[in-house]
Amino acid sequence: MNPIRVGLLGLGTVGRGTFEVLRRNQDVIRRRAGRGIEIAMIGVRDVARARAQVGTAVPVTDRLQDVVRHPDIDIVVELIGGHEPARALVLDAIEHDKHVVTANKALLAVHGNEIFDAARRMGVMVAFEAAVGGGIPIIKALREGLTGNRIEWIAGIINGTSNFILSRMRDTGDSFAAALRQAQELGYAEADPRFDIDGTDAAHKLSILAAIAFGVPIRFDAAHVEGIAALAAEDIRYAEQMGYRIKLLGITRLTPAGIELRVHPALVPMQRLLANVEGAMNAVVVKGDAVGTTLYYGPGAGSEPTASAVIADLVDVTRMHTADPDDRVPHLAFQADALVQLPWLAIDRTVTSYYFRMRVADRTGVLADIARILADCRISIDAMFQREAADGQDQADVIMLTHDALEHDVDTALGRIERLDTVLAPVIRLRQESLA
Amino acid sequence: MNPIRVGLLGLGTVGRGTFEVLRRNQDVIRRRAGRGIEIAMIGVRDVARARAQVGTAVPVTDRLQDVVRHPDIDIVVELIGGHEPARALVLDAIEHDKHVVTANKALLAVHGNEIFDAARRMGVMVAFEAAVGGGIPIIKALREGLTGNRIEWIAGIINGTSNFILSRMRDTGDSFAAALRQAQELGYAEADPRFDIDGTDAAHKLSILAAIAFGVPIRFDAAHVEGIAALAAEDIRYAEQMGYRIKLLGITRLTPAGIELRVHPALVPMQRLLANVEGAMNAVVVKGDAVGTTLYYGPGAGSEPTASAVIADLVDVTRMHTADPDDRVPHLAFQADALVQLPWLAIDRTVTSYYFRMRVADRTGVLADIARILADCRISIDAMFQREAADGQDQADVIMLTHDALEHDVDTALGRIERLDTVLAPVIRLRQESLA
Repeated sequence: MNPIRVGLLGLGTVGRGTFEVLRRNQDVIRRRAGRGIEIAMIGVRDVARARAQVGTAVPVTDRLQDVVRHPDIDIVVELIGGHEPARALVLDAIEHDKHVVTANKALLAVHGNEIFDAARRMGVMVAFEAAVGGGIPIIKALREGLTGNRIEWIAGIINGTSNFILSRMRDTGDSFAAALRQAQELGYAEADPRFDIDGTDAAHKLSILAAIAFGVPIRFDAAHVEGIAALAAEDIRYAEQMGYRIKLLGITRLTPAGIELRVHPALVPMQRLLANVEGAMNAVVVKGDAVGTTLYYGPGAGSEPTASAVIADLVDVTRMHTADPDDRVPHLAFQADALVQLPWLAIDRTVTSYYFRMRVADRTGVLADIARILADCRISIDAMFQREAADGQDQADVIMLTHDALEHDVDTALGRIERLDTVLAPVIRLRQESLA
Repeated sequence: MNPIRVGLLGLGTVGRGTFEVLRRNQDVIRRRAGRGIEIAMIGVRDVARARAQVGTAVPVTDRLQDVVRHPDIDIVVELIGGHEPARALVLDAIEHDKHVVTANKALLAVHGNEIFDAARRMGVMVAFEAAVGGGIPIIKALREGLTGNRIEWIAGIINGTSNFILSRMRDTGDSFAAALRQAQELGYAEADPRFDIDGTDAAHKLSILAAIAFGVPIRFDAAHVEGIAALAAEDIRYAEQMGYRIKLLGITRLTPAGIELRVHPALVPMQRLLANVEGAMNAVVVKGDAVGTTLYYGPGAGSEPTASAVIADLVDVTRMHTADPDDRVPHLAFQADALVQLPWLAIDRTVTSYYFRMRVADRTGVLADIARILADCRISIDAMFQREAADGQDQADVIMLTHDALEHDVDTALGRIERLDTVLAPVIRLRQESLA
């Protein structure tokens, strides 16, 4: 059988990886897919640079529209990233009856519903394993491997850059700024790492996971997002002393009141596998009502790991492209007509437990005042210790872990605590996730 | 659309779980699969007992052949276990044009090639996610999620009973026998736990994983199998002191000389996630040339976790049962005509590193003799320490870790060492796997 013909848009890190792995592993890929997968055309901005990379065997053009409309192309692989022109090109490809494989989480998080609608109308597939968790087949696990379950929650380390920085801060005691510089020097953070460290990238991915877990449209705008730039080395140390590691987590949970969708640093008990995911690696924990807790771990980014996911999608599409659209796995895991609208839970309605660090005057009665306010606000203390402040005379740091509390109550309590004369600085607070 | 109709063979732990989860989660399953999945008939040995469990809504029969041949049944779920009558029933179902879902690793390990051949001739699917790793979608990850990769090796904790026993031995210092009793009391080991503790069950699963990883027929008879019954608590303790945990691993690796296929206890560096998989949980590490290292973790057995895998297969089959057989994922991941025969590596051709414990006379020159023999046999020592024997006067235990060595050389060296007058007992040896 003739090879299936792929038009590749973009020849950056992932594009080059895809080109290289498809070439290197063409024999095993053909043995699995039943036919060859061939890159028939490459669309890039800089043609000369691309030619230097891939030689003359494959036509290269800077007219990307020619790729997505080319009559001989069966599948378009979009590896440009960002919203435009990626969105326009993907929609154009769909209108021209091409299947699409994309690694673009920003695109799907914001324009996914529109894109999947268009694909459904045209009867084509849009596959996106590479959009979340790099080489980890987490989309497949959720969409196909756990279909017997009511998914209860997902918690993941889904941004390698921020996990690298947090691992480094813990290992070395470095500040956030120093750890970020180190990440940039080693190539784990880009020159502009904004979306990695402010939680946006993780929220893009999380909003895709939530949709396929719960059978709802993608709603990136419903996410509560906090990054890691404000984390102090001492909080990582104090957490460690209490048996916790701090990780940037994406968490989504189906509650009777609505879906939680939140990205923020969180304390995770050290004995959880997730707490032991180090460096730039990713891991996603999925809790289903039948299966219980499963975890998926691997490299969350990088040239060939991400190419691995792109090619898995290419093989799936190759196998299924002549099948009846009704036989295929629905884009968002649930049949399009079975997606429902569920409320999204505002962050102040979230119930979880907390870590507080309070700078207080080292004076009798301080703790009593704080404890009374917490009790008034229905917050009970699970553990507490006090440390003399290294940098302030007659000052102390009070570190607390709470039991489960409503975030709204925590806001109220901390507001009142911060107004106490004896509390000398804004209270540091972090959420704590038991993941049980 | 009418529900797809399932005939269920067997109503043990997994059968009851499947019945219950299909009922409880029918709405989300239908939203995903596009149609309902209905158990239309149940075949068991003890009809009265089954009626007591499932009521009268579903016909129950002890004529299992009636189930596999029933014209209204689309999919047969085989949850009887063992070789016969499971093999005959599965083949009969296939001949009657039924798709089959099975959790039966013993069956597939020994008769899988015959069953898949028959299924291919008839154009039906035989799905077996539940046969390996319980609820972990590891078959899907390997068959579909990593199709761009040349798989290099797989290492897994794929028997929960033995992992529970080893965790218990480490936590409590218990002997193997005491830990096994505890496992039986808690329901983590069956009354007859032979196949769990002697490595047979893990080898069944591993031989399936090897076939779909490397594109070869299943060859259970090629496996080298050792269990955990001979493990001493002190070896677990010594390993711990050197930074290792002992796990019963299934390992398969593609080498230029052939495929390794071996189940045995092994030392794993403590910082590996796999070393931290505790209790009855399972985890499988897969190394691919493009993706690098990925890990899949979850409950490896149990009623609803295994049912989760059975139902995922049912959803897959429901989606694909009208599709052209060529569009489907091939049974063994590679197209049937692309399976190849590769040599299987005998255990004495394996290269790995080792842990030795030697009971020696506490006398000058002993170590020099041992070290010379090892050097003669091309085995170099990575670490060593000595402990006074608790139970023998003027005796000591010498504990060693080696660098990589050929097992054949290790056999030779230990044979010579055991003939030394100063070596007082057979040498304890365990393999050590860096999993890097």
